[in-house]
Amino acid sequence: MRYGGDYNPEQWPEEVWHDDVALMREASVNLVTVGVFSWSRLEPVEGEYDFGWLDRVLDLLAANDIQVNLATPTASPPPWFSLAYPDALTVTADGVRLTHGSRDTYCVSAPPYRTAAKRMATALAGRYGEHPALAMWHVHNEYGTWCHCDHVAGAFREWLRRRHGSLDVLNEAWTTDFWSQRYSDWAQISPPRKTQYLANPAQLLDFRRFLSDEMLACYVEQRDILRPTGVPVTTNFVFGGWVPVDHWRWAEEVDLVAIDDYPSGNAEEESAFAADLARSWARGRPWLLMEQAAGVRYAGGRMIPKEPGALARHSMQHIARGSQGAMFFQWRASRGGAEQWHHGMVPHAGPNSRTFQEISALGRTLAGLSDHVPGIDAKVAILWDYEAWWALQSPGLPSPDLDYLKSIRQAHRALWQRGITPDFAHPSHDISQYETILVPSLYLITSKSAANLTTFVQNGGTLIVSYFTALTNEHCQIHLNGHPGALRHLLGISIDEFTPLTEPIPLLASGETPPPVRSSGTTWNAQLTGMIWSENVRLVGAEAVVTYSSGTPAITRNRYGAGTAWYLSTQLDDDGYAALLTAAGLPVASAPPGVEVIRHRDGTVYAINHTKDAVHGIAPNPLPPGGFAIFNDPCR
Amino acid sequence: MRYGGDYNPEQWPEEVWHDDVALMREASVNLVTVGVFSWSRLEPVEGEYDFGWLDRVLDLLAANDIQVNLATPTASPPPWFSLAYPDALTVTADGVRLTHGSRDTYCVSAPPYRTAAKRMATALAGRYGEHPALAMWHVHNEYGTWCHCDHVAGAFREWLRRRHGSLDVLNEAWTTDFWSQRYSDWAQISPPRKTQYLANPAQLLDFRRFLSDEMLACYVEQRDILRPTGVPVTTNFVFGGWVPVDHWRWAEEVDLVAIDDYPSGNAEEESAFAADLARSWARGRPWLLMEQAAGVRYAGGRMIPKEPGALARHSMQHIARGSQGAMFFQWRASRGGAEQWHHGMVPHAGPNSRTFQEISALGRTLAGLSDHVPGIDAKVAILWDYEAWWALQSPGLPSPDLDYLKSIRQAHRALWQRGITPDFAHPSHDISQYETILVPSLYLITSKSAANLTTFVQNGGTLIVSYFTALTNEHCQIHLNGHPGALRHLLGISIDEFTPLTEPIPLLASGETPPPVRSSGTTWNAQLTGMIWSENVRLVGAEAVVTYSSGTPAITRNRYGAGTAWYLSTQLDDDGYAALLTAAGLPVASAPPGVEVIRHRDGTVYAINHTKDAVHGIAPNPLPPGGFAIFNDPCR
Amino acid sequence: MRYGGDYNPEQWPEEVWHDDVALMREASVNLVTVGVFSWSRLEPVEGEYDFGWLDRVLDLLAANDIQVNLATPTASPPPWFSLAYPDALTVTADGVRLTHGSRDTYCVSAPPYRTAAKRMATALAGRYGEHPALAMWHVHNEYGTWCHCDHVAGAFREWLRRRHGSLDVLNEAWTTDFWSQRYSDWAQISPPRKTQYLANPAQLLDFRRFLSDEMLACYVEQRDILRPTGVPVTTNFVFGGWVPVDHWRWAEEVDLVAIDDYPSGNAEEESAFAADLARSWARGRPWLLMEQAAGVRYAGGRMIPKEPGALARHSMQHIARGSQGAMFFQWRASRGGAEQWHHGMVPHAGPNSRTFQEISALGRTLAGLSDHVPGIDAKVAILWDYEAWWALQSPGLPSPDLDYLKSIRQAHRALWQRGITPDFAHPSHDISQYETILVPSLYLITSKSAANLTTFVQNGGTLIVSYFTALTNEHCQIHLNGHPGALRHLLGISIDEFTPLTEPIPLLASGETPPPVRSSGTTWNAQLTGMIWSENVRLVGAEAVVTYSSGTPAITRNRYGAGTAWYLSTQLDDDGYAALLTAAGLPVASAPPGVEVIRHRDGTVYAINHTKDAVHGIAPNPLPPGGFAIFNDPCR
Repeated sequence: MRYGGDYNPEQWPEEVWHDDVALMREASVNLVTVGVFSWSRLEPVEGEYDFGWLDRVLDLLAANDIQVNLATPTASPPPWFSLAYPDALTVTADGVRLTHGSRDTYCVSAPPYRTAAKRMATALAGRYGEHPALAMWHVHNEYGTWCHCDHVAGAFREWLRRRHGSLDVLNEAWTTDFWSQRYSDWAQISPPRKTQYLANPAQLLDFRRFLSDEMLACYVEQRDILRPTGVPVTTNFVFGGWVPVDHWRWAEEVDLVAIDDYPSGNAEEESAFAADLARSWARGRPWLLMEQAAGVRYAGGRMIPKEPGALARHSMQHIARGSQGAMFFQWRASRGGAEQWHHGMVPHAGPNSRTFQEISALGRTLAGLSDHVPGIDAKVAILWDYEAWWALQSPGLPSPDLDYLKSIRQAHRALWQRGITPDFAHPSHDISQYETILVPSLYLITSKSAANLTTFVQNGGTLIVSYFTALTNEHCQIHLNGHPGALRHLLGISIDEFTPLTEPIPLLASGETPPPVRSSGTTWNAQLTGMIWSENVRLVGAEAVVTYSSGTPAITRNRYGAGTAWYLSTQLDDDGYAALLTAAGLPVASAPPGVEVIRHRDGTVYAINHTKDAVHGIAPNPLPPGGFAIFNDPCR
Repeated sequence: MRYGGDYNPEQWPEEVWHDDVALMREASVNLVTVGVFSWSRLEPVEGEYDFGWLDRVLDLLAANDIQVNLATPTASPPPWFSLAYPDALTVTADGVRLTHGSRDTYCVSAPPYRTAAKRMATALAGRYGEHPALAMWHVHNEYGTWCHCDHVAGAFREWLRRRHGSLDVLNEAWTTDFWSQRYSDWAQISPPRKTQYLANPAQLLDFRRFLSDEMLACYVEQRDILRPTGVPVTTNFVFGGWVPVDHWRWAEEVDLVAIDDYPSGNAEEESAFAADLARSWARGRPWLLMEQAAGVRYAGGRMIPKEPGALARHSMQHIARGSQGAMFFQWRASRGGAEQWHHGMVPHAGPNSRTFQEISALGRTLAGLSDHVPGIDAKVAILWDYEAWWALQSPGLPSPDLDYLKSIRQAHRALWQRGITPDFAHPSHDISQYETILVPSLYLITSKSAANLTTFVQNGGTLIVSYFTALTNEHCQIHLNGHPGALRHLLGISIDEFTPLTEPIPLLASGETPPPVRSSGTTWNAQLTGMIWSENVRLVGAEAVVTYSSGTPAITRNRYGAGTAWYLSTQLDDDGYAALLTAAGLPVASAPPGVEVIRHRDGTVYAINHTKDAVHGIAPNPLPPGGFAIFNDPCR
Repeated sequence: MRYGGDYNPEQWPEEVWHDDVALMREASVNLVTVGVFSWSRLEPVEGEYDFGWLDRVLDLLAANDIQVNLATPTASPPPWFSLAYPDALTVTADGVRLTHGSRDTYCVSAPPYRTAAKRMATALAGRYGEHPALAMWHVHNEYGTWCHCDHVAGAFREWLRRRHGSLDVLNEAWTTDFWSQRYSDWAQISPPRKTQYLANPAQLLDFRRFLSDEMLACYVEQRDILRPTGVPVTTNFVFGGWVPVDHWRWAEEVDLVAIDDYPSGNAEEESAFAADLARSWARGRPWLLMEQAAGVRYAGGRMIPKEPGALARHSMQHIARGSQGAMFFQWRASRGGAEQWHHGMVPHAGPNSRTFQEISALGRTLAGLSDHVPGIDAKVAILWDYEAWWALQSPGLPSPDLDYLKSIRQAHRALWQRGITPDFAHPSHDISQYETILVPSLYLITSKSAANLTTFVQNGGTLIVSYFTALTNEHCQIHLNGHPGALRHLLGISIDEFTPLTEPIPLLASGETPPPVRSSGTTWNAQLTGMIWSENVRLVGAEAVVTYSSGTPAITRNRYGAGTAWYLSTQLDDDGYAALLTAAGLPVASAPPGVEVIRHRDGTVYAINHTKDAVHGIAPNPLPPGGFAIFNDPCR
């Protein structure tokens, strides 16, 4: 079980290093990520390396049985690089060339950057490839940087040429006949820089795809330099709407999926979400929680201390879902710099602090765990597609309230609350092993993926599709002749109008007359409310299960082949969405609220008690408040 | 009666064209606007034209008796143009040169743009000037683009030289002795680019005047190329605070006024407003509703479907006010591109949709109408001046709540609600035919226009002037020695202080003691409330009719010559403003609320029922819910 | 006693000048500031001067016994300058080079600007140094302009070299090992231009220090040209979070401190604050209120007329605190330009206006006052440090609610309300003369200043420190091993965690159980509420006086040497903060609310009645509503 965090000894005098190592041992730390932002130390002048300090750090760690996840420092080139190669500095969509003074001020398409990054990776591989401390390579940090410079423009054009083959195909895919955008020469195509009015959605989407591939190429270049050392190579995935990285594709190129996780709101629910995503990206292979904050979470620009025990509970949520350990950013809180308040395993107050005490306690706990790999046989999946997410960030959509991530999170939350640990799946994946699939607001879908879903239902699966799904193809072009074009036969409906809502409206069980009343909670007598969105659904084979007050169908069900396809044409609140899942046959929670139970295929069960009370009857022994247990459940 | 919309066949395979024409005939479409954004299709490479497809489109339309409003596609130059002439791309006030990828990325002052636009107009005139389908020329699209580049700077200086004659005159007009802005060479003058702090209001105002004139010159260049074909030439006016176009001046240069109208809130009221503006700009000449949305309206970023029947009612509001028909953007909703959700007469769902059914029904209705031209003899006018609007967007005003358009719209709404169809008039126009003139917040007025208003009252007219009016001259310079400088003699008042309000305050009928009570609604017993603004009015001949609670006059009346000049020193709510109009002698509504009655000078009456109930007693037959009637009223 | 305002005759025809002078005499004006924005008049073409008009203005003023505060017009170079020296135009952090068209479009580091400014100062000194009207030199206007251009970059590097001596020292001070920012050549350092993510707090802080010093050098250059004339030299200080000027340092270089004061909210309290700051900067030397608005105050973008009498009362607040008079911006309200609505001593309405009547009345009053200098022996000081303010504007702080100015203002308001006139003091000053010192949220403190405070308490002083104080050193680096690092021994506490609050929470007097009740108001029975912030305080010698509901200390008291050090770990409301001051032994107010009493060391008392009632028992005679009195109080 990996335990540790980012370690930045270059920020401290060497005498502190010995305290560090002693404290690491006290905290049972066995892996530290070193060197993430050390380029200006390792290569203080172009071509002149200073590895002495890093040698001493790695030797010291090795001598204390602490392994190293050695980073290539390419996420932050040194000042000399920015000065020597100004064309490698990021350019915004407005044409502003950024300057040095923060981090990530580089362009992934700039040849000088690519060259310098490879040279650095080569130097590190050569010097440390056989170091006894070395356990993992950590390429770069949180890939996700945009650039709009001319290097990017050139690379984008090459990528487009490879993707589309010809300008005619691109013009068709991008619908360039709208607004006179038809290209007659590749050189006419730019990144989506600042323009007069709304940008072309297909161009925006292709640009995100390009950035994902371009950054992946950077990663792969370094990985291929490091791999001959025989040590696993990875990079830490960061998650967010602004990150143009398709983690499905990236997961195929790393030796283990590694994620950073910084919950901001309901941390238990968000940790479960992040861990289920990571587990799904890994598709059965190992993965690792590479970064989390030790002592605080970020909420609305405020750093809120984690309540006592949270640090351990959240780590266990990841481990229960297959993380090979729990890592933090960072070991020792920085004295200065832009993230000096970011917190650390050793806070500014030093080891005599609640945070370090909890860190040490967790380290002891993890050291006592035995290895466990097996994995989770999920019966429910949520469809998750970056391209659909990006497409739902297009300009010119009918409502600003359409929010893919919110829809996805509601679906995951509903499952988490009833004790179901779902997979995330890409629409094109083999999904035959699932019984139920949730499809929240999947705006974009290819015809091939639509066929995949159809086969799934045909063969007996249950599909639960939410509003604003399957409207466009991979080029953001409408599937015509009645929405949702790519799935209307499967769903047995046709839609010709959407009505955004600014106020919630009541829904009625079909045949009911208002006012509906809430009764036992999970039947359709529950009072349902539609929010932000509604659709004019016509039945073409499906039956209405719930209607708007006008009588128009709001929720429909269609028997198709051996299975059932549900359609939800509005946004429900959490209770309403839970009622829908119940109606669709999903089991309800067996554990009390706040108690998380995760079952593996080998019968191993992880139970985590997020409540402030002891909980009986879940694990062999009572679960203490905030505690957890791992045990084998033969009844599985 | 014109009926149709923008038709963009270039976005669709040719096999769809035949469906299009069949559906157009089904919908009684008789005019389509073709080619607005087709430049990259018509001239795919510089100097190489491809007219074949357009030939086929026009022949097909002609063969089906559908006329064409043929556009010059100059609102969106093709990518090759942007690449070849980067100096013709728009530059923002911040100095960002925009890139291709949306629409309208051109500079109207750039010589390469002007040349290319004229060449294109010449080619179209030559090829299609005698085509049997051709019924109208549509120059460009929605002129209104700002630019701050060096071409613009040069043209602005030339314009200033023509306007002001000498630098001394300009320095005086712009008050350049404030903040050391005195110019000693024309070359020192720039467009109002990004500067350190507040910009010079007179410079900002002149820059908007220049942009209006410069774009008008572009239009006129094309018009003069097209006119020899003998077909009427126009361009579609777009309305908004950001549009630097003075439609009074432009209306003189088009063969018919054409407007685009996209209501966002109360669509009935906004349609009446837009149509009354267009009718007024046309000054008795024909005009046309060139664009409206078929199925949706835009509200707060949301696309809200038009309720059943609205599409016809709103079209009739325009026709009742003299529009020669009803046109839409666009015929067939686009599959892709930035406005793919903008809706169309044929929506994505196809003809089997409510929208297309209503489009067809309206087409049949219009086809059954006989021609009618006469016109409306308005007795009430609202003063409307772009320069005053622009001036009220100056930096450094005493309150951010001063809003010309809101004041104008309240005045129009009050008249509309009482069944009065007003003209809009420019302050310099001959206004002798009116009985009453409303002057809402006309911040800027020339001395000559002030004299025009004075003569109007002298001769017996009623003038109703609202707060923050007549304070500055045509250079945004204060009319001195007591506000409102240019009208204080006419109004019989003098003001030395303004007090912006953050909370509403009660007003009192003169002599009254608080609390005032609402009684029969239209007398001064009505409870009046002042909002956002108040003024310290001293009486210099006028009498106080309503006061602030301090006793200071809030509303005054001045007998002047044979007429009366009212002054309102605060913002009233709608009820209060209506009470003011009543007090000033304007008749109240005779039709029920929601029933619009428009009378022409020949006795023709248009009655439109915006309510959900049948209405009796207005037209010879009952007006069905949402219905309308046209009849002759001999009592007129 | 100085009385007058900015006089800009260049904006008016010469015939108006004679009216001006007559009105000035009527208003008892004896000093006017001339020429602040007159560069384009004085030097209409490079190197060609036109002093004729200014000669006539100064002669006319001299002839009427009105003295002149003659400005160097360097805050607004003329258009020809901007055209000739585009490299001297300001550049934003985004790289936008500003253009002419407002004011302050210059770069203080640009050699052409420095040269032109010195040349102008030399010309003015030569021509007017012995003019009989000349009473004062007014260099520039409201220094405070940022620039990020290459000239600035060069000057910043030179400044850094002088400050830090070597790159190693700078790298250590800036913690450049964080995020790989280590510099290996001075040329690699830039101003904090737009960068990818959070900027380096130490770089930002040093850049503000540099700007303050660089602008000071500009001022000193001009001052040294003007001083040989024997007339006092100053510049008007402007106050605001965006102004990178350290007035402590600047005050040492002016012959008298001069301030501009534009209250926006509670004008009485803000005037007292501004005047106490100015008085403190002057450190016993003369100072002057150089600018205030005559008729309006600015509140939320709105210009609100000053209520009757306010103009005099606010002026007296300054005079009571040592201002040598009361000056206004500006004499005559401008007809045009960006500040045409800014108001003036002679408003647009002319002398027949309330404002001018009050201006005249105040002039007569001041003319009747006899000279008075002595000064105030404050026993209470508030620590005030620009560097701490700037540091608390760093990116990446734990909460966006931390606001130095708000904390400072609450402390000052609490003292003002209880009739205490405090000094402001820099943390490094000799503070031995005070009995009590308030330290609101002083995020940054040097070890030396911390020692200064420790000695103060050791010797018997009372120190009242608020939350988020003394956390970092002069380089924004954390004082380690328990917060607040630099003062924890003095305060007898140690803190390891901060918790930002989004809702207020109740506090308890130590030992109390909830719910606390408000009783006599100044005892700890008062109901206290914590807001926006809380801290996890451990007692290391101090005692808890008030706790959070958890029992954790919220307010502590530590006996240290002969004195007492209080610590407040949260934000209190005004009542709560007042209760804390009472608990710490500060006397309560003796005058009624709204009556301001300021005592000088010679027994002179200024009493100002801000209420609408007559007040008895404060001055020898009753104070009329809005009135004031100056008298000698022998009991002092």
